[in-house]
Parts: sequence; C-alpha cells; structure tokens
Amino acid sequence: MVKRSKEHIDLKEVWTILRERISRLPDRAISMVSIDPELSGKILAEDVVSMRNIPHFNASAVDGYAVKAYRTSGAAPATPCILSEDSFQWVNTGAQVEDIFDCVLMVEDSSLSDSGELLVYQTLSPGDNVRPVGEDVFKGQIIGRKGDRINPAMTALLPAAGVKTLNVRKDLRAIFLPTGDEIIPVEKWLEDDKPLQGRVMESNSLMLKAFFAKWGLSLETGPILPDDPEVIRKQLLEAVSSNDVVLIGAGSAKGKKDHISKIIEEEGELLFHWILMKPGRPAMAGFVRDIPIVDLPGFPMSTAVVCWSVVFPLISLLLSGDFSEDSIIPQALGALSTTHNASLLVPHSSPSGILEWVRVRTVKINEETRVFPLAGGSSTMWAMAESDGLTLLDPKTVECPKGSLWKVWLTREIEWERRILYQGSNDPAFDRIISYVRKNGGDLIARYVGSLGGLASLRRKECHLAAVHLIEPQTGLYNTSYINELKGDASWYRQVLFHRQQGIIIASQNPKEISSVRDFVREDVQIINRQNGAGTRVLLDMLINEEGIDSCDIRGYDNISLTHFDAANHIAAGLADAAIGIKAAADALELDFIPLVEEPFEIVIPEEYLEHSGIKAFLQALNEKDWRKQVMGMGGYRWKE
Amino acid sequence: MVKRSKEHIDLKEVWTILRERISRLPDRAISMVSIDPELSGKILAEDVVSMRNIPHFNASAVDGYAVKAYRTSGAAPATPCILSEDSFQWVNTGAQVEDIFDCVLMVEDSSLSDSGELLVYQTLSPGDNVRPVGEDVFKGQIIGRKGDRINPAMTALLPAAGVKTLNVRKDLRAIFLPTGDEIIPVEKWLEDDKPLQGRVMESNSLMLKAFFAKWGLSLETGPILPDDPEVIRKQLLEAVSSNDVVLIGAGSAKGKKDHISKIIEEEGELLFHWILMKPGRPAMAGFVRDIPIVDLPGFPMSTAVVCWSVVFPLISLLLSGDFSEDSIIPQALGALSTTHNASLLVPHSSPSGILEWVRVRTVKINEETRVFPLAGGSSTMWAMAESDGLTLLDPKTVECPKGSLWKVWLTREIEWERRILYQGSNDPAFDRIISYVRKNGGDLIARYVGSLGGLASLRRKECHLAAVHLIEPQTGLYNTSYINELKGDASWYRQVLFHRQQGIIIASQNPKEISSVRDFVREDVQIINRQNGAGTRVLLDMLINEEGIDSCDIRGYDNISLTHFDAANHIAAGLADAAIGIKAAADALELDFIPLVEEPFEIVIPEEYLEHSGIKAFLQALNEKDWRKQVMGMGGYRWKE
Repeated sequence: MVKRSKEHIDLKEVWTILRERISRLPDRAISMVSIDPELSGKILAEDVVSMRNIPHFNASAVDGYAVKAYRTSGAAPATPCILSEDSFQWVNTGAQVEDIFDCVLMVEDSSLSDSGELLVYQTLSPGDNVRPVGEDVFKGQIIGRKGDRINPAMTALLPAAGVKTLNVRKDLRAIFLPTGDEIIPVEKWLEDDKPLQGRVMESNSLMLKAFFAKWGLSLETGPILPDDPEVIRKQLLEAVSSNDVVLIGAGSAKGKKDHISKIIEEEGELLFHWILMKPGRPAMAGFVRDIPIVDLPGFPMSTAVVCWSVVFPLISLLLSGDFSEDSIIPQALGALSTTHNASLLVPHSSPSGILEWVRVRTVKINEETRVFPLAGGSSTMWAMAESDGLTLLDPKTVECPKGSLWKVWLTREIEWERRILYQGSNDPAFDRIISYVRKNGGDLIARYVGSLGGLASLRRKECHLAAVHLIEPQTGLYNTSYINELKGDASWYRQVLFHRQQGIIIASQNPKEISSVRDFVREDVQIINRQNGAGTRVLLDMLINEEGIDSCDIRGYDNISLTHFDAANHIAAGLADAAIGIKAAADALELDFIPLVEEPFEIVIPEEYLEHSGIKAFLQALNEKDWRKQVMGMGGYRWKE
Repeated sequence: MVKRSKEHIDLKEVWTILRERISRLPDRAISMVSIDPELSGKILAEDVVSMRNIPHFNASAVDGYAVKAYRTSGAAPATPCILSEDSFQWVNTGAQVEDIFDCVLMVEDSSLSDSGELLVYQTLSPGDNVRPVGEDVFKGQIIGRKGDRINPAMTALLPAAGVKTLNVRKDLRAIFLPTGDEIIPVEKWLEDDKPLQGRVMESNSLMLKAFFAKWGLSLETGPILPDDPEVIRKQLLEAVSSNDVVLIGAGSAKGKKDHISKIIEEEGELLFHWILMKPGRPAMAGFVRDIPIVDLPGFPMSTAVVCWSVVFPLISLLLSGDFSEDSIIPQALGALSTTHNASLLVPHSSPSGILEWVRVRTVKINEETRVFPLAGGSSTMWAMAESDGLTLLDPKTVECPKGSLWKVWLTREIEWERRILYQGSNDPAFDRIISYVRKNGGDLIARYVGSLGGLASLRRKECHLAAVHLIEPQTGLYNTSYINELKGDASWYRQVLFHRQQGIIIASQNPKEISSVRDFVREDVQIINRQNGAGTRVLLDMLINEEGIDSCDIRGYDNISLTHFDAANHIAAGLADAAIGIKAAADALELDFIPLVEEPFEIVIPEEYLEHSGIKAFLQALNEKDWRKQVMGMGGYRWKE
C-alpha cells in the first residue's frame, strides 16, 4: 500500500487533514454514582430521568398558615374570615402543606386573636402559595440529555431526583511514550547528585500531564523507550490497543535515529510530517490500527507547541467532532485573556513562510500595553515558565518593526498597576531585588539591554526604570555625562544602588596565565565579550584603548554574551578563556578573578513614575536588610554610606 | 459591645464592606515534592532556586560534528579544511560536546571523504552551535518567585533544576455547615424509596463543592445541624478554629427559626444582613473569632447566587487581597464567554431597587442572538441545571420590553449553528424528541407558549419552529385557518407529527363523579386551566360554549398551568379536581381520563429554515423508530399513515 503523507505543510492544512480524518469517538459509557464528587464536568452518556417528584410533597412557598381555600371566601382587610384553631396550621417556607389543606395564607395577611383564632384578610384559591408535588421536577421527566455536561446545579439535582447511578461518557484514554537512549526518568534524575554527562531528564511528560489536567483530561506515561525500532514498534502496538490517542516523544528531530515515521508507515498510515512552524517543525501524525498517533519533537517548547496546535485540536475532534479554528489555540493554552493591541518594544524578525510561536512578557507603560519576546530557543524551559503568554506570528509575517501591534494570549494573571519594566545593565544583585519588590507589593520584570540601551529605552518611554555603570574614558567619572545627554528636558531621579567590582574572569587556577587585558591579544586566548552599549563592554574598550590594542586582534571580541553569568559560564564550560565581568559571577562559578575597578551601579527613574505603585515598592525594597545581606554574600559588592 | 450591622444593602455595598474588612490570609506554606501531579496551579510560597545547571553539560544545538574551532580557520566551500578521523566526533542535537572540542560543525557544512576524513566548508569560532552548561538555567538562579502560580512548563522545570521539594501556599480551608431539622443527608435520601413528607435532601453541599472545585479549591461539609442554637453555636466555634472561612446553610429565611444572626452577633460581629437582590436576599456575613462567616439562604438558586456574589469575592480577598468588580461574577460562574447584546424574546419585569439574577436560555435566529428567562423561583433546581447562563439586572432595571439588550454570561458550550428554538404547544411526546434531535446532530430547545403563541412567534421570527392543535369552533377543522391567518405572505412548511387524545383529567377513581364539562360548574368542583392561546384552552372554551356555560361559573377557570403535566400534577396533589388535558399526562400520574377528541399535533416551519442544520436534524428525528415506540407507550398517541 503506497500512501503519500503530506510533508512541510502549514498548520491550517494540518487542521484540514485532522478534520477530514479524525471523527468523534463512539460513545462509551461508564457508570458513576450520583454523589461522586468527580461527577461535575462529566458528560452524560444517556438521558437521565427523574425517579421522584421534586418536591415530593405539597410545600409551602411562604411563611404562613395552611388553610382550606373555601374557608377564606370573601375575606378582605375590612371583612376578615375567622378560622378556629383546628382549621389552620403554621407552616414555614418549604414545609409540608398537609392534605387536609389546599393553600397557604401569608402571615402578612393574617392575625391571631387572643383566643387563638385566625383572622384571614385575603381570599384564597386552592393552590395559592403552594408548590405542588413535582412542581420543580416530575417523576419521569428527562432532567439531563445525553451529551450534556454536568454542571454544579446538576450535581445537586441528580440525587435530589432519586438518581443513584448514571452513565457518563468514558474519559479519553491517552498515553505518552517518551523515547531516547539519552533520557532518564525523573526519579533517577533527582536521586543522582551528578547526572551523567549527555543524559537529560524526561521532563515532557510532567508538562504534558499538566496541560491535560488543565483540559480536564488525564494522560498516562509509558516507560522510557530506547532508540530501538523494534522496542518502539512493540510498545506502540500495545499502546494503540488500549488508548484513544498515543503521543510519542521525540524521535523525529534526531538526525540518524528517525525510526518513528517508518514504524507508523509500516504499521498504519502517516498523515503528515514536518509543519511549517517554529518551533515544532518536526512534528508528525498518523494512524496505527485506526488510533491517531502524534509524534512530538523532543525540546520542551516544541513539544508544548505541538501539544497546543495538533494534539488539542485532535482531541477536540475525538471528543466533540469539531473545533473552532478561531478559539482552539487560546483554549489549548488555557489563556486567561487576550490582549489585541500590544505594541512591540523591540524589532522582531520572523522567518518567512513559517508560523512562529513567540513567548512574551507584557507591561503597561503610560496606559499602553507593550510586549517583548523572551530570548531562548525551543530547548529552553525557563522562558516558557517565565512567559506571560504567547503570540503567534502568521507565516506572512517577516519583519516586525518596533511598535508593531501583536495579539497576545495571556496565560499568567497580571496586576497591571503593580507591574514595572526595568531595562538596563545586567546585574545578579539587581536580579535578587525582584523578590523584595514583590514582597513590597510591586511586580518588577527586567530586560538586560546594557547601560546605554537602558537609558535610550527610558528616553523613549519604553520602561519605568533603568540602571547604568558607564565610565567616561576622558575623566574616569561614572554615569552623569551619559544620563545628562539622554534625559533631555526630562527630570530623572537617580540613586546609586551599590558599588561592585569589575575585573577579568578567568578559569580556575588560571591555566592560561592571564594577568591583564594585554594577554587578550595572545593567539591562545579566546575571550567572550558583552553586547554593544553594555557598561562592561565600554570598560573593555577603554582598557584596550589605553593599551593601544586594536579590537580586531582579540579572538572572541565579537562573541557576545548578554549577562555576566552567561559570559562566566562560557569560561566555566571551556568555551572561552577570559571575559570582563563582575566578581559575583566569577565567585558563583568558582572561577578566578583579577580585580580592575570598582564602579557605582546607579538606578535612574523618570520622576513621572515615582508615584507608580510598582516603583514605590521598588524603592522600599532597596531598604530591605535581607536583600543587602544576600548580596553581600555574593562577592564584590559594597555600600558606601 | 454594640456594633450595628448594615441591613438591606446592595451588592456594591456588600463588596465595599468585604474589601474594607477582609484582608489577604497570612502566607502559610506546605512542602510538596516537585513531581507531585497536584503541583500545577499551586502558588509558590518562597523563591525557588535552581540546584543545577541546565544543560549540565555542553550540548550540541545541531546535528553535526564536534570539532576544535581553530582547526576550521579559513575554511570555506571553495577551500575546505580536512580533519583526520580522530579530530572530530558525530553529535546529535542535544548530545554532549566532549571537552576536547569547542564547537559543532553543522552536517550541512561538511562532507565525509571515502577515507573517513571530514571536509569542513565553514570557519567556526569556539562556542558555535554549542549550548554551554547553564545556558537555559544556571545553578543558583531564581527560577520561580514567591507568589508565582506554577504553570505546566514550571512543573517540568522544577525537577529538571534538581528541586526535590518546595514550599507552596497552603490551600484555603473552607467548610459548609448545613442546618435544618427538615434536612436529611443525601445517602439516607437515596436509601429511602419514599422519603418522609416535609423532609428534603441536603443538596446544596454537592453544588457548592462543585463550584469550589471549579475554582480549584476544596470545601469540607460538616454534619447536618438541627435547628438548635446551642448545637449550631458549638459547631460554628469548632469550625472557625480550623478553617479560613465558614459557610452556614439556611437559617436566615426560615421564619421563626432565625438563630444564626443572633449567634454571630453574640460570638463576633455581623457585617451585614439582607442584600437587595433576588434571589439571595436573606444572606448575611460576619466574623466569629476573626474568621469570616457567610450564611447562605436555603433554596438552591439563592445559595448559588450568594456563593457567586459574596463567597467568591470574599475568597478572592482572602487569597489575593483584591478582586475586580468587573470580572468577579463571570469568574465565579466559570463563564465560558460573554454575549453583550442578546435581544430579549419576551418582556420581563424586574423588581425596582433590587438586583435580579436571571437564568436564561439563548439562541441565534437569523444571526441575531436572542435570550429568554427560564421560569421557576429560587427553589427550583431544574432551571439552574438547564440554563445556558446568567443575566444580572441592575437595581435600576424595572421593565424590560421585548427586544431589550441583555448581557449574558454563558456557562454552557453552545454550538449556535445546530441550535433551534421551538415555541408552541406543550406536549410530552414532543419533549421526548429533543433527545433524538440531538442524536441527529441538532440542538432543540423549547418554550411552551401555547399553539397561538407559537404561531405568533413564528410570524415575528422569534423561533425556528412551532406546533399547533387548534380547533376551529365553527367547522371542527384543525389548524389551517389559524396558520393561514398568521403566516401572511410567508411560506410555511407543515407536517402532522401525530394525533393525540384530549379529554378530562380527573383524580383516580373519579371521587367527584365528574363525567363531562357540565360538571365543571358544580360548586364542589375546582378545575385548573391552561394559559391564553393554548390549544387546550381553546378546546375548553369551545366545549363550554357548546354547553352554554359561562366561564365565570367555573371555579379555577383563571388558575393557570403552562403544561399538561403541571395541570395533571395539581389534580394528583389534590389542589384541583379536573383539567382538560392529554391522556399521556393522566396515564403518567395514574389519574383517570375521560376522552373527548383526537386532535392532530402539527408542526410548522418557515421554509427559510429548512436548510438550517438544526431543523434538518429535527426532521430526521421524526423518523426515529425508537422515538415513536417510546411515545406509543405513553398513551393516547397515534400515527395515521
């Protein structure tokens, strides 16, 4: 049987294929007792009929006196009827109206005489103020239809109607099969203090289970399978025998080890392979024994993207026979809200002809919602955990200039009036303050764009605060000339947060015997630099300028890290020999450090934001003793007071 | 201590009081293991720091060959460098780059010679295509901040970062204490085949638990308490000692037995009592031992309303210190969407100065969203279970004419293109067809407004279909003259669904010895009639007219039931002696029946709707054998074919 699967198709085409080929699962019922706390949200697999009348007795609708209507004939305030003690009975709202009565007189329309007789001021008809047997629901009435989702009111109605058990639709059975020789189970990963090099934890099952749980579904996880086609085949065939959908982890992006498409083709049918989206491109789907199979790329973000855009629509088709292309993605994400016109803070290039998923953070500045993408490829988990939400850039999108309006699906609760955006120099002590800002009622998010980048952002009103440590080569003075040049007529509040030591970060034990920036020109020395506009790069440029060194003679001058930690990490990882950076980064990674200068790290805030509740919280946080104590322990920081 | 609680206040004032008096709970943490499946959605009670670098080794970012960068110096497609077998190593994406290498050559930029040497077509720098140790997350990095909600990505990141256990915010502890001598536990209720008269099931705890579960919270239920102030006091004091919020069921609306406000005043402070809303008016809230207490009225709808509008905001204050007045109600309801301009199908009177909660159903007719309220007071569970959503009418709203635009919070998933609205005559066999319409892919909702009401609705385009059984007194012919009069120039499709027997429904054994409508004028005979425009009322009017009876001489002529079952139920309940109605209603309630006529029950559909997928499903359903079989068993139905 030669069937050609579609390759390199866009998501709309994926959805069209899924719609054509995936139909609603046949109804399968399981019985549940009507008082099972898990019942709410389940779908009825059959019509449910009331076994009882509700109420099951004639009940009073008011507080008052049960009477016979004919005894009240002609009663009015001016001409009350008088009833003897044995011809009426007090009833509370909801209480039974005995068979010897046929209506209830509201207490407001009566009075009791001293001798215990009832004065009636209102003429009644039989049934007045009585909720007759079965008024709410009668015995035999259909109270729930097959296909209805059981809502909270229904959970109370079912037992009240005498229903003891009922058939609900059986849950979807789904399994995830992780594969890969390099994958180790989470339990083993946490047990080992130093996991083997080259091995990674099986983390995707945890994330996928959490998404399924958000959708009200459960997901089983199979054992981790080795990269052995026959083992995978056997497990896949077993999985399809007892599941409605099977997800396989990785396989598809793994160079020489791509077995899974072959197995699906041999045992069933491959529907498509490679989607024109980023990340998530290597995804594929097919059928084995008529059960849909989705192969998820291994990287976390790729897995998530395919889970939202392929697995969730597929499951919707299995469960309800359809899905709405407009709302399926925010539904899959569990988006809390949608922001339609978030203005982009930085230019963004999107690949042409490819749908791109972008993890973003958002902030409101002067009432305008701004958005920026988080850095990091599909392998990074941190950016996913940290993001406020997602933007989807359609395949036609190529260049998004600053100020482009993006639609953002927000997956995090954000209190806009507390949130402030920092842009500026990177510093690990500053990073620590974020928690203390939160403690004081603010919500600080940070983009590390270098000192000059921060000032420029402030000037363009693209952040609430910035920080700088910029040396002026001519004078050796810090910050003032840069700030004055950029602030123009605006009033900017300034405060030195702390002083910190800058120097040369080198490998432990200094194997290359580096002692100053003069060594940076040596053929056996590879440096890692910081981005344009970073105060640390300004410092390096000043230092080599003083030594008359041409930057072209330095190996690695154009290799860029965006943070002190990333630069230090390159040295720790053996990918560079030296970097200019702060002592705290060297200390944290147990690297050697040659001190060069102590510099003031100064915060700058436009005065217009000083009343912003986020900025207030930030300024309060600066006085937190715990923060200072923590920072003192990081190495190279000092307060001059 | 004399403190005056507020009485008879509106909901806005309730919210103001709650905001002033309820503050965020102090942080209380519990430890959870990082791989607990319940972790997703929990809130971090502390900052979480990564225990490991991710990746913990230098990993390849591509499929290719790990090499030393300096060996590729000058390499280009025209001038490849040649590397011997021992100076490169194949690596898959994600695999380790051994320490003896410092970059990865993409497989596309290379070729292997026959003798096993590697031809390199690209000059590389150290670090190229390598994800260094800690690139994603470095050891010591803060990966989650106190107050963050754990999202699915975070559930994977935490163990990947070597975090074994972490502190999350302890769940809210809430308890519901049902009270009332008349209340019996659900288990007992289901056990008894015939529950005692005057007793009702404790159903509110089930509904409340389901709402709490929707909010991601759990709710304990205490034992059912008798109407004994000292027992209630004791239990309340116990409950506040181990809970963050205590809900008490009923008490407040129960006439002479209102203890709870007194207990709260004596043991603490009453904040308010009586809210200007309908239902839910008797609600109250206060503090006992600084723990907030909410007293919920006993009726299900009242309980639900207070749960949404008082309990949920209160809980939001306890958990986050604030709530948004704009979104708190739809959040509480778990609204799936909001329809802003649903046009009202029937006039609605709302009490002045009172906020009114209205359970509604919705439908789209000719692209316009229409809405109508469901009948039933706060005691009815059925209307709650059946509703599509809620509308809140502000206190200023008094008369809402037909066509008023209501905002509706939808709590049910509706497939608009499948949904059709029936307005017309009530019939239990018709009611049964709803399930078969659904089986055929439609979604039929019905309003029983009588035959004439249905035709008038059709004419005004206020429904998709109607049904009639209207006798013309002059000719004894059915339906045609009425239809022709109302359809005007429109083309209406007609089809007789079935014939059914109408007659006089009387109590079993006919204790009043009723034999014809002539007996309706007897002083000891009380009838129950149907509403104006109902075909059954038209029939009665014709019959008494033939007998020369004046309707003023019939006791109960103005007492109205909207359905055959309701009329029959009044007879079964002893509240009326006779009604005109169909045999099926008499049979179902085991009442006696005196046949009078057999009438055609005819469906009418404007031709413009014949292609509507809901109408198509309806017409298909008419041929369902199972439906006909079911209807045949109900008594009094016949097909003439």
